[in-house]
Amino acid sequence: MPHIALPEGYPGIRSLFMYNPETAKPLNDLVQTLLHEVATSTLTPGERELIATYTSSLNECTYCASTHGAIAKYQLGGNAQLVQEVINDPSTAHISDKMKALLKIAAKVQHNGKSVTEADIALARGQGATDREIHDTVLIAAAFCMFNRYVDGLATWAPDDAAVYDAIGKQRATEGYHTKPFKVQGEQV
Amino acid sequence: MPHIALPEGYPGIRSLFMYNPETAKPLNDLVQTLLHEVATSTLTPGERELIATYTSSLNECTYCASTHGAIAKYQLGGNAQLVQEVINDPSTAHISDKMKALLKIAAKVQHNGKSVTEADIALARGQGATDREIHDTVLIAAAFCMFNRYVDGLATWAPDDAAVYDAIGKQRATEGYHTKPFKVQGEQV
Repeated sequence: MPHIALPEGYPGIRSLFMYNPETAKPLNDLVQTLLHEVATSTLTPGERELIATYTSSLNECTYCASTHGAIAKYQLGGNAQLVQEVINDPSTAHISDKMKALLKIAAKVQHNGKSVTEADIALARGQGATDREIHDTVLIAAAFCMFNRYVDGLATWAPDDAAVYDAIGKQRATEGYHTKPFKVQGEQV
Repeated sequence: MPHIALPEGYPGIRSLFMYNPETAKPLNDLVQTLLHEVATSTLTPGERELIATYTSSLNECTYCASTHGAIAKYQLGGNAQLVQEVINDPSTAHISDKMKALLKIAAKVQHNGKSVTEADIALARGQGATDREIHDTVLIAAAFCMFNRYVDGLATWAPDDAAVYDAIGKQRATEGYHTKPFKVQGEQV
């Protein structure tokens, strides 16, 4: 049960966005530009969703890891296996060496900002990562250290049904983050 | 030296805001409503800045802890000692029992969202904290887990001179977060 009274039928961050529209607006604007909009990054939406998924998985945030894992799947042409490989171990996943280096930076950021080293940055640059891609990786990982804590720190509802996350993933991958939240049918546990 | 090429003369988050205006906009909007605007929370701006300062201190983020510590001081009528007491140990600081309970929740969030317990929430409620105050505490602590990682993960410039943070603190406490950044005179180290 959530630590505070939240609108029923809406899981995770969406219940918090409905609870407090004043902070929902900038948080939703952030995730829209950071993850979804094609013009704002040279990383693809699929790559950006993988960074969000991986960071959320490291933070053991079920709602965010499941939701962004499903969005990543749809952004990557339905490749659920690739998403699972990244969650399991980016170093052996079927992704580019640049993405492996960027996910290594994301893991450092998830631990603590100061743990990112010159060597981590040099490795990413050596694989072709630009300043902007390094920036976006650090900010996505940092932002999900916020979203994960917001979602779990207030004990929001994380549905057990994988089909719910798949439906959310399809909606967000298609429509982005600014459309109305997905209301879950049935009883909230 | 920062990990990526950032505008010189601007420390910490401000160099990142100038580097990427697209993400700066929602991030700045978030901190404005979350910390500064009086109408959006029943916690005072001084109390909210103390939560930001304390979280940043736990994350050992020099730039954010120093900046928000200085803003908190100005929001609390110049009481630098109170800010230092909170950084040292909220349980012995001259703050309300409600704030002590909320800062305990902030410390849990800094560690991991899931570590916030029913008992932590009950303690805060017992000291008069509302749902909205618990929400704001969790979100401020979570947001600074993002800002701290963004600032340190890209190794932004944190000035050594306490007078710089004091000047930033005075500016932000007075003007909020939407005015132009504070440009530091002299050479960037």
